[in-house]
Amino acid sequence: MPKINAERLLKDLRDLRAIGTVGHGVVRPAFSDTDMEARRWLKKRYEEAGLDATLDGVGNVLGRSRKNGPALIIGSHSDTQPEGGWLDGALGVIYGLEVARACAEDPETADLAIDAVSWQDEESNFLGCLGSRSWCGALDPLDEAAATGPDGESLADALVRTGLADVPRLAIEEGRHAGYLEAHIEQGSYLEDAGEQIGVVTAIVGIRGMRIVFTGEQNHAGTTTMARRKDAAAAMFEMAHRINQEFPIVANERTVWTMGDATIEPGASSIVPGRAELTLQFRDQDEALLNRLEGIVQAIGAEIHDRGRIGAEVLSSRTPIKPSKMDDGFQAHIDAAAERTAPGCWRRMPSAAGHDPMVIHEKLPCAMLFIPSIAGISHDFAEDSHDADIVAGCQVLADAAASILQEAQAKSR
Amino acid sequence: MPKINAERLLKDLRDLRAIGTVGHGVVRPAFSDTDMEARRWLKKRYEEAGLDATLDGVGNVLGRSRKNGPALIIGSHSDTQPEGGWLDGALGVIYGLEVARACAEDPETADLAIDAVSWQDEESNFLGCLGSRSWCGALDPLDEAAATGPDGESLADALVRTGLADVPRLAIEEGRHAGYLEAHIEQGSYLEDAGEQIGVVTAIVGIRGMRIVFTGEQNHAGTTTMARRKDAAAAMFEMAHRINQEFPIVANERTVWTMGDATIEPGASSIVPGRAELTLQFRDQDEALLNRLEGIVQAIGAEIHDRGRIGAEVLSSRTPIKPSKMDDGFQAHIDAAAERTAPGCWRRMPSAAGHDPMVIHEKLPCAMLFIPSIAGISHDFAEDSHDADIVAGCQVLADAAASILQEAQAKSR
Repeated sequence: MPKINAERLLKDLRDLRAIGTVGHGVVRPAFSDTDMEARRWLKKRYEEAGLDATLDGVGNVLGRSRKNGPALIIGSHSDTQPEGGWLDGALGVIYGLEVARACAEDPETADLAIDAVSWQDEESNFLGCLGSRSWCGALDPLDEAAATGPDGESLADALVRTGLADVPRLAIEEGRHAGYLEAHIEQGSYLEDAGEQIGVVTAIVGIRGMRIVFTGEQNHAGTTTMARRKDAAAAMFEMAHRINQEFPIVANERTVWTMGDATIEPGASSIVPGRAELTLQFRDQDEALLNRLEGIVQAIGAEIHDRGRIGAEVLSSRTPIKPSKMDDGFQAHIDAAAERTAPGCWRRMPSAAGHDPMVIHEKLPCAMLFIPSIAGISHDFAEDSHDADIVAGCQVLADAAASILQEAQAKSR
Repeated sequence: MPKINAERLLKDLRDLRAIGTVGHGVVRPAFSDTDMEARRWLKKRYEEAGLDATLDGVGNVLGRSRKNGPALIIGSHSDTQPEGGWLDGALGVIYGLEVARACAEDPETADLAIDAVSWQDEESNFLGCLGSRSWCGALDPLDEAAATGPDGESLADALVRTGLADVPRLAIEEGRHAGYLEAHIEQGSYLEDAGEQIGVVTAIVGIRGMRIVFTGEQNHAGTTTMARRKDAAAAMFEMAHRINQEFPIVANERTVWTMGDATIEPGASSIVPGRAELTLQFRDQDEALLNRLEGIVQAIGAEIHDRGRIGAEVLSSRTPIKPSKMDDGFQAHIDAAAERTAPGCWRRMPSAAGHDPMVIHEKLPCAMLFIPSIAGISHDFAEDSHDADIVAGCQVLADAAASILQEAQAKSR
């Protein structure tokens, strides 16, 4: 099994952190000067590791192994949130680099093909998962044409500004890859709370968003009796409270739902509300459970509507994101690798946040691995993880990558 | 008993309506050109009726009887909402004029002292109940100094503009009045629904306003489990729905409550709300019932707060208005008069809207009489009442005024 170099791994992470460092955090949003500097820095590291390195026309950096496939492509994104943590994305990118190096250095794994990658703009500075969409052939030209960044700069202008406009774009090579692996900080606190070191991701949760619109009759809050009122807000309050009471009946401990906004019109203390609108979002890794939750919303809405006083309309507020199942075989390899490095201190778990594998799993088997986030903090300068966990996670990923490829080689012979 | 002149009454109402008429409604807000024109027109009508007429320094118009007391003062307000109905206020003002005339014309009642009045700015264009407050000596100089109208004009500037700044202000004459009577359109639909013609007002309802502030913890809507959340909006939805479930247990059929506004912070679909605020207003004629309702709010708030996850703070959002009880003896006189004109077609009822007697009842016994509003509409151009109800209401008021004053004369002899 390949042995990762902990000192080299941590040094590369710290060198990357220095590009765009602000306080404890990092400011390196996609296509910023610091982002582009980091990508050029990474291209050199790939070259030093003996990989054929390319910065492509959307900003993806690929370090391609000179070995024949079956290959694994391993990485994450080096762009950050506008005020990001130092490990979100960067961890998985440097893991890809280190796994490629560690495998190349071990005679037993030196023939394995490990491609390392940093996708562009996972964090939606211009267009979420731009790099992985482009690589997978899943980038809609209309989305690309409409994409704008901070201060209204178009994506097209950003590509000109960064010298990428005429650079070719990389695309998935048919037949080369057995799959894609990505490591990431957990961004929650399950692992820390349980004293565990590795999360083996089962799926990236699906997300549904709804708007529920209530239509009543605006009226005088003094002279309109309760019996005559058609109070849109009262119906909204009932619906919201019942969702909070009925969702737990079918939800599991990882299901989440949020009513993050509500509006009441006209919104005056002395006027019976004529219209109200509730925002609801819910996430789970199980599409059937998402359907059951949506069914509850529809049923409560229909019950309120059918009383004949208040109109209740349940609308979709976003394109639903389906749960992305991670590959079962890959999960078993990561389980085994985790048990070797952190015996009894790992678990299977879904990812509650979105990642590039939501795009890539349509083309390749994918798997993800989590390490603990201190206090569950992410998307914040304070984000951090312990060195011991960073090192352990990389070793688990290297072991899993090696065993996945060895198995794939055996099958392809 | 005095016999009112229906034709004269309706003609005066229509002549007043013509001043500021817009479509079916009237635009005559306090201190506007149309309002001042209407007050000068009214002063002439008082003079023609043999009353000593005064337009005072805040815009009140008083038609003082030359008879000795005990007197009744009868009227309402001739100012309107920015887009007002033609009868709100005007009805009671012309009733005062007609009752004074009808009593003077009947030898049996010609010796009764009926003062007629139009108070200024009941509708809060600059300062609600300005005229009655001034007359009662209840006008706070700080409130007056702070009062501004549309477009930010100060009340002081409005008095200069209308030529009233140096005009003396009338004040209540100690010992003259047995009480104050006011007639008004109902502004609700109890009378119309019941096929009744007269409402004898028992009290003007008290009003309490509360703000309930919920403090939780803002967090990521994907990675924060339900068990860890401190969702301020969820607590608000619970409180609002429970208020709607628990208030009916102690409320009576006339109690009203309204949650007319709510805010959620930061108000995004993907963020667990860290703060929420609910606006609650409730009205009833019984102070003890208002206390019980406030107790329910406090109890739910304390229960949520004591769970230790979400802070719930129940705050007063306005100076509470206590219920204003109408005089029992006056009510009995109006009951009897109503039974004469509209046998079996009258009821006792509270007023859900505010009126000048909220101010005046601190100084004088007060009573109010309602006539039906078509479809319960008010504060709207569409506001209207049937001529037959307008005429009947004035006859009831004249009869009641005469019998109240005859009783007062008998007592004072």
